Amino acid sequence: MAPDSSLVNTDLSDRFRLFSGRSSPELALEVASVLGRDLCEVRFQTFHEGEVHIQIEQSVRGVDAYVIQPTSQPVNDTLVELLVLIDALRRASAATITAVIPYFGYARQDHKSTGREPITAKLVANLLTTAGADRIVSIDLHSTQIQGFFDIPVDHLTAVTTLCRYLRDSFDLSNAVVVASDVGRAKMADKYAMILELPIVVVHKRRSGVAGLEVEVVDIVGDVHGKTPVLIDDVVASGSIYQQADALVEAGAEPAIISVSHGVLVGPAVERLDRPSVQAVVTTNTVPVPEHKRLGGKVRVLTIAPLLADAIARIHNRQSVSEVFRAEQLEFPV
Amino acid sequence: MAPDSSLVNTDLSDRFRLFSGRSSPELALEVASVLGRDLCEVRFQTFHEGEVHIQIEQSVRGVDAYVIQPTSQPVNDTLVELLVLIDALRRASAATITAVIPYFGYARQDHKSTGREPITAKLVANLLTTAGADRIVSIDLHSTQIQGFFDIPVDHLTAVTTLCRYLRDSFDLSNAVVVASDVGRAKMADKYAMILELPIVVVHKRRSGVAGLEVEVVDIVGDVHGKTPVLIDDVVASGSIYQQADALVEAGAEPAIISVSHGVLVGPAVERLDRPSVQAVVTTNTVPVPEHKRLGGKVRVLTIAPLLADAIARIHNRQSVSEVFRAEQLEFPV
Amino acid sequence: MAPDSSLVNTDLSDRFRLFSGRSSPELALEVASVLGRDLCEVRFQTFHEGEVHIQIEQSVRGVDAYVIQPTSQPVNDTLVELLVLIDALRRASAATITAVIPYFGYARQDHKSTGREPITAKLVANLLTTAGADRIVSIDLHSTQIQGFFDIPVDHLTAVTTLCRYLRDSFDLSNAVVVASDVGRAKMADKYAMILELPIVVVHKRRSGVAGLEVEVVDIVGDVHGKTPVLIDDVVASGSIYQQADALVEAGAEPAIISVSHGVLVGPAVERLDRPSVQAVVTTNTVPVPEHKRLGGKVRVLTIAPLLADAIARIHNRQSVSEVFRAEQLEFPV
Amino acid sequence: MAPDSSLVNTDLSDRFRLFSGRSSPELALEVASVLGRDLCEVRFQTFHEGEVHIQIEQSVRGVDAYVIQPTSQPVNDTLVELLVLIDALRRASAATITAVIPYFGYARQDHKSTGREPITAKLVANLLTTAGADRIVSIDLHSTQIQGFFDIPVDHLTAVTTLCRYLRDSFDLSNAVVVASDVGRAKMADKYAMILELPIVVVHKRRSGVAGLEVEVVDIVGDVHGKTPVLIDDVVASGSIYQQADALVEAGAEPAIISVSHGVLVGPAVERLDRPSVQAVVTTNTVPVPEHKRLGGKVRVLTIAPLLADAIARIHNRQSVSEVFRAEQLEFPV
Amino acid sequence: MAPDSSLVNTDLSDRFRLFSGRSSPELALEVASVLGRDLCEVRFQTFHEGEVHIQIEQSVRGVDAYVIQPTSQPVNDTLVELLVLIDALRRASAATITAVIPYFGYARQDHKSTGREPITAKLVANLLTTAGADRIVSIDLHSTQIQGFFDIPVDHLTAVTTLCRYLRDSFDLSNAVVVASDVGRAKMADKYAMILELPIVVVHKRRSGVAGLEVEVVDIVGDVHGKTPVLIDDVVASGSIYQQADALVEAGAEPAIISVSHGVLVGPAVERLDRPSVQAVVTTNTVPVPEHKRLGGKVRVLTIAPLLADAIARIHNRQSVSEVFRAEQLEFPV
Amino acid sequence: MAPDSSLVNTDLSDRFRLFSGRSSPELALEVASVLGRDLCEVRFQTFHEGEVHIQIEQSVRGVDAYVIQPTSQPVNDTLVELLVLIDALRRASAATITAVIPYFGYARQDHKSTGREPITAKLVANLLTTAGADRIVSIDLHSTQIQGFFDIPVDHLTAVTTLCRYLRDSFDLSNAVVVASDVGRAKMADKYAMILELPIVVVHKRRSGVAGLEVEVVDIVGDVHGKTPVLIDDVVASGSIYQQADALVEAGAEPAIISVSHGVLVGPAVERLDRPSVQAVVTTNTVPVPEHKRLGGKVRVLTIAPLLADAIARIHNRQSVSEVFRAEQLEFPV
Repeated sequence: MAPDSSLVNTDLSDRFRLFSGRSSPELALEVASVLGRDLCEVRFQTFHEGEVHIQIEQSVRGVDAYVIQPTSQPVNDTLVELLVLIDALRRASAATITAVIPYFGYARQDHKSTGREPITAKLVANLLTTAGADRIVSIDLHSTQIQGFFDIPVDHLTAVTTLCRYLRDSFDLSNAVVVASDVGRAKMADKYAMILELPIVVVHKRRSGVAGLEVEVVDIVGDVHGKTPVLIDDVVASGSIYQQADALVEAGAEPAIISVSHGVLVGPAVERLDRPSVQAVVTTNTVPVPEHKRLGGKVRVLTIAPLLADAIARIHNRQSVSEVFRAEQLEFPV
Repeated sequence: MAPDSSLVNTDLSDRFRLFSGRSSPELALEVASVLGRDLCEVRFQTFHEGEVHIQIEQSVRGVDAYVIQPTSQPVNDTLVELLVLIDALRRASAATITAVIPYFGYARQDHKSTGREPITAKLVANLLTTAGADRIVSIDLHSTQIQGFFDIPVDHLTAVTTLCRYLRDSFDLSNAVVVASDVGRAKMADKYAMILELPIVVVHKRRSGVAGLEVEVVDIVGDVHGKTPVLIDDVVASGSIYQQADALVEAGAEPAIISVSHGVLVGPAVERLDRPSVQAVVTTNTVPVPEHKRLGGKVRVLTIAPLLADAIARIHNRQSVSEVFRAEQLEFPV
Repeated sequence: MAPDSSLVNTDLSDRFRLFSGRSSPELALEVASVLGRDLCEVRFQTFHEGEVHIQIEQSVRGVDAYVIQPTSQPVNDTLVELLVLIDALRRASAATITAVIPYFGYARQDHKSTGREPITAKLVANLLTTAGADRIVSIDLHSTQIQGFFDIPVDHLTAVTTLCRYLRDSFDLSNAVVVASDVGRAKMADKYAMILELPIVVVHKRRSGVAGLEVEVVDIVGDVHGKTPVLIDDVVASGSIYQQADALVEAGAEPAIISVSHGVLVGPAVERLDRPSVQAVVTTNTVPVPEHKRLGGKVRVLTIAPLLADAIARIHNRQSVSEVFRAEQLEFPV
Repeated sequence: MAPDSSLVNTDLSDRFRLFSGRSSPELALEVASVLGRDLCEVRFQTFHEGEVHIQIEQSVRGVDAYVIQPTSQPVNDTLVELLVLIDALRRASAATITAVIPYFGYARQDHKSTGREPITAKLVANLLTTAGADRIVSIDLHSTQIQGFFDIPVDHLTAVTTLCRYLRDSFDLSNAVVVASDVGRAKMADKYAMILELPIVVVHKRRSGVAGLEVEVVDIVGDVHGKTPVLIDDVVASGSIYQQADALVEAGAEPAIISVSHGVLVGPAVERLDRPSVQAVVTTNTVPVPEHKRLGGKVRVLTIAPLLADAIARIHNRQSVSEVFRAEQLEFPV
Repeated sequence: MAPDSSLVNTDLSDRFRLFSGRSSPELALEVASVLGRDLCEVRFQTFHEGEVHIQIEQSVRGVDAYVIQPTSQPVNDTLVELLVLIDALRRASAATITAVIPYFGYARQDHKSTGREPITAKLVANLLTTAGADRIVSIDLHSTQIQGFFDIPVDHLTAVTTLCRYLRDSFDLSNAVVVASDVGRAKMADKYAMILELPIVVVHKRRSGVAGLEVEVVDIVGDVHGKTPVLIDDVVASGSIYQQADALVEAGAEPAIISVSHGVLVGPAVERLDRPSVQAVVTTNTVPVPEHKRLGGKVRVLTIAPLLADAIARIHNRQSVSEVFRAEQLEFPV
Repeated sequence: MAPDSSLVNTDLSDRFRLFSGRSSPELALEVASVLGRDLCEVRFQTFHEGEVHIQIEQSVRGVDAYVIQPTSQPVNDTLVELLVLIDALRRASAATITAVIPYFGYARQDHKSTGREPITAKLVANLLTTAGADRIVSIDLHSTQIQGFFDIPVDHLTAVTTLCRYLRDSFDLSNAVVVASDVGRAKMADKYAMILELPIVVVHKRRSGVAGLEVEVVDIVGDVHGKTPVLIDDVVASGSIYQQADALVEAGAEPAIISVSHGVLVGPAVERLDRPSVQAVVTTNTVPVPEHKRLGGKVRVLTIAPLLADAIARIHNRQSVSEVFRAEQLEFPV
């Protein structure tokens, strides 16, 4: 079974310190609460020109610092704030610094799709290491290879088990299929399929026609007629996944249950998801999802605080982190 | 159209030098021939205990060195030989060192699939940089994210256009589908599908049943009945792809045309491919494919020497490499 | 005399390329115009969550790239954009990358004023080096020691000669004094004093009284009665310099001429400067100063484009940059 | 109040080890005495050609080593000796190495004042890091930005509170002013002024006249007539500060009390200070001040051993170092 | 006296973990046995193309890992396997990683004997550091300078005392001389001579005659007539040392006792040593010496497991390692 | 034949610049003269406390700088001066920096002879790289492995051919032997023996007797009776080689001709060599040997300026450096 707050080992040494940047103090507080610890005080200021200034309010000499900061919207500010906080901790003689980045901004820029592009996810990895991070904890990175962008240890957690448990408990999946929203998501769909014991379907977007008259065609690879599609992705972002939902329904499927690890809902996302082809959106609080974006309950936000708290406690106590995931998977399908 | 030997710009400065390790001197000679240059002489020895020793036979002070060495079987020997050659070039004052690694061994170990695994592809990237490489040229890396394992420039070429041109010219593809051999290959299948203007199908392998009685099930996601499957992967290796070929035929497909970028054929690969469900295997010479492994013509090996020669000449002459690929794709489907 | 556009050597090799980020395209265009070159095309996008994405539109293989980007408001966005652009240039095989940062954001965070602060200016220096910058060009850094934060070459230019020339030509300085706005600015005041041949005065702010009843006292060290104060600083920012102007007038001085290198005017700055104790504000366009912030001409913005263009041309042509400054200073006071 | 030897926490773990180079064994012994520890034995030799050779006489595996070595005259010898000692400790498997450098030689070379100069203070910072230092402790660095020359933690202590306490107790300061010996020292003067609650005056040296007939003019910015000047600097060095003392007296001031953190007295320094315009010289033992340089008591040397001992103990015990300074400042003015 | 298994301190903290690669599991097991610990389980696989894959079977978070792997034949495989294992340990958050490399392959390639050679021993040192090793333990490196190829601590042990003890106990050395097999081994001969209190002789191989008609001449420098030569080297390798043995006998010496630290016996080594001029070969198990290579007892293999176990225990317990050697030498000659 | 000034290629590009530190301006001037170039002007100052300050007097932007500085007595000063000069060149944008270090101070500290020693030669290598050197040129390093202490290219020259040519031309060597002054010098003796076609003898110093009553015994390994010993070493230093000369004569040899690459003569060296057992001392000017140390002609100092000039010219012109040495050796023995 997945981590339950009450099962998290909260016996932490006196070197343990928990910090939060300003991108999701709610999540950090929740993690702190599970661990029975207070967040360390940091004074943040943003000057008129946009410069962030921080001041750590108590001694951190020799401590093991854990900094929770999803690098979510506005990503450049949350990223720089995280780097500055790490720099301050290093110069103040923290023994180790673990950057806990539930949502890793820029993760989708993990390769060059054409010439002369940056690989910004790697750049960010280098910046974090340069600033002084000793270890990274993150959840459902856009590609698992991003772990290899680092030479420091990365503890890569997944929200998929948490999401699957909820899906199984809250929906009738007896006639469901897992649908990868794109060929690039097929591996993630495989993970859902394995846990939920469902077949998979892949949505394949391609361009058709001659230049100038090209249209984008959405092919559905696999059978969805009469089925309940669990349409998965790592992140919603601007909500373009609505096209897949519509295409599925057009192909005879039931309205889709969208399941994404990171509830990033920006720009037109919320209004795009407010349509009949979408039955529900299940996600987590790796980034803050304010109440007004939840479409009156259609968007359901699970907490991953116990998961993070458990991982942090295990890291601090030098216990296996992978174990908890293995346990979950084996026990899951009753 | 793809690079044609006669179109490669062979006007190279006098700083240009081409080297080959011992893993594919044939390919290196072919590239040298296209470029109208000789390979530089290097004396290689392998001592009884397996140590490689090299001696570069002419001055390399200030030259731009291009070293061709697929890190193919036996991968540890070809890799270490490459590192040693780079070390010698650096200490002998080469101005720049470009490692041309048509087949990048260990590329499939590009992430941690479970806890406590290495990420050997990243390790190899670090080793190459440590030894002194200034730039990498490679072909169809197992995942495009491997580019980001480096902070030095990587010119990532593809053999897919070369393969597609051959497939289109040599087979009747009017009723074909592109089949990804695994969910992880769905993105590569997309590339084929775009060029060949064909739909895609994905093979999904999963474990079923309760522990102890588990079996691996091969699901075919998408419709293959009566179709000619172009079954794609980056590499054949030990030939386990025969299972997909068999499953496709069982599902009513015609015998498969297997298309892979790297003709790595090791262990039982050759005999496994010698079966009715496989119509042909199309691949390239990024690694040497000796005559006796070609099944009397069923395995067809295209040369990527012109492609490599063109890329190397463009790099040396400071011209765009991505251009040639863009050109190919646009012109391709007349 | 200071660099005159017509005197800048525009004979640049064909490896020269000029780029601009989005923080001051106007300045970059002006520099490009002086150099008789076009800016290279870069496609910029900002996604809904704030991620910047860039794509360089033409080959940069082997070029010497000069990127103009003041890291001005909003500083985190302009900084990350610069880092991403450098990363893209490096991966696209630019031969050298010079970051031209006329205004260097975070420069005032150049030391720890108390325990457990970051030294963000050093962090930024490290980030730039990590991303791949080979050289930095900047103007009037908050402290000259910031040059030492880098191990790559830094060409540190000054706008003070440009400002002094304007001050001398536009105001009657026969009874003027140079006023350092703070003890930390005394060295910069010395530079003005040397060029303008004027005495200096230092404003000393200190806290007085017992805790709880403390007030900030502004002492004026030196004689200003009946004098015209040239009140100098490196940057205006939120405009708190108005306090010094007021104090000077209270001490019997004429209304102040404020001279600052960087026309950063944020928050309440503009309205604060709109007071009788301020005669004029002279500054430069190291950061954009939009028309509506110029108080109908009271804020005068000199262009440093010829200075930057001259420095860039000299760097590219391997000529001395310090020479031009030495020349200026010697010729200046006729 | 400042650290009192009897208040220093001498409860140190058994991993604690204290070392001294040969530049100030007296200071190191005094620190050792405060901490109730012996210095570890190191055998030093200097060969005829000037090479230093060292041999650490007892195991240091896993210890936290603190090496006390002001890089004072002869600076190249003391610096190299420190680097060699750090190298030996690292190779002998010390767990951490803290370089305690009470006086940091080359600190004044912290920027390029003109083109084509080194920034030797940064070079020294890099050398220390390369040799293997994990942390730096220093006192009153010439500029606070030097902290940012390092990426390892720097604990920057100040002797100013120690000096101020002595000044207040030993002299009548009722009619005193703090005088910065140069515009670059104005910030340090501010620190004194804040603690002693005195106004400040700045000495401004400038060149006047046309080239060839230039003379250096010493302007006194602020009022000193009839006042007792506390003339401050970070270091005396060759004693050119006598010019400021003379100018102050000429301007009607009383003979100056010179206060400097580092009692570096080299070349003509001692005889230059032996003049009526200098009332006393107050300094500390960050570098050794032999008896014969003390002008029969006119040069008064305070010990900073308790300060160093306290800082070292706090570092070792993972307590706040900045706290002690904050405490001092708050309690100081009765 | 040399370390005796029963005297090794086996009181190790619970952070201690011992690993073995696949090059000498026998030695690793023996060390484990002396230390009273089990080897940690690692699953090794070698794929058909030669790629090694490993999976560590239990949590190593925060442990001090000691990996025993002589990089012996086949050297590239054992070296890469070691690097991969280190990479896995680092990414799995081991606190420290000590690479115990009893025989250091490629050590003889420690300098450039002519232009344009690699210095592969240095390359290997860099690769180990890049992979993540924190410390190296090795035995009788080909040259002591190889320690300086690393900046991490190297504990350099010697098997010479173990060998000498055996030689003294098993042979009549009353009329013996120590013979360096080559001028480059003269320093090692000195070590034997010091312990055994014997004179030394040096074999000097040189080329004589004019080019084309050159022959290699083996000069014996020193007197061997009627003496028992203890012919020493660091390694046997392909057994060319037989030439020295023959030359000694020709010069009137008794059959030689060959003593080498590393029992590398490759290619024609065994049959070459099976000759009358060789009385015995004494060596150790830094590399495995299978029974069939022992010439029915003529090759005698001493175990260095107690030596390694003692060193590892001392390292882990933060005790002096050099002490044990000093002790040995002082006590040795009864 | 060895390089002759008139044969050195002096056709150097306009990027070439030659610099000298202050340790041997005579040698640098001589090299400059051979190359037909002036030394670049650098202003050196040494402050009273021993700090060196430098200022490069002309632009070095984009030049290839060659800095000649033997790190000879006083070694710490000459070393730091070299580092500072390299730092200045790097910050002033030199394109490449080659440190030409004819005599490499601290080279004898190239390994740990016991526990807890530094490896200062490696430290120095790291310092040079950190400061910004791109390449090293040196002559007869104490051990050839020191090349591997660097990862930048090292051009390792030898003065042995120059010395041998002189020995052959100036002495009757018909009955001579080459004598290694110590077992550690046996390899260097081999080099002499090969060129001069002479046999070798090795001096073996060892301690004899029980502790407390130990004496050092000088054994002569090989036959010297009636022979002329060419007693070789890399450096004389304090002249303890006189013991070997005496011992040779005692053993019946003629007075020794001492040949050393580096004429370091410090402390009691000169008077020690002024004895009958020493016939002559032949050395070179890698370090300055003032007239008064030449014992009226007994110490003969050959110039290596043509050798250095030739190497520098070849490096700059991208020609082989090893070639010249190979040529020398082949042509040497008529």
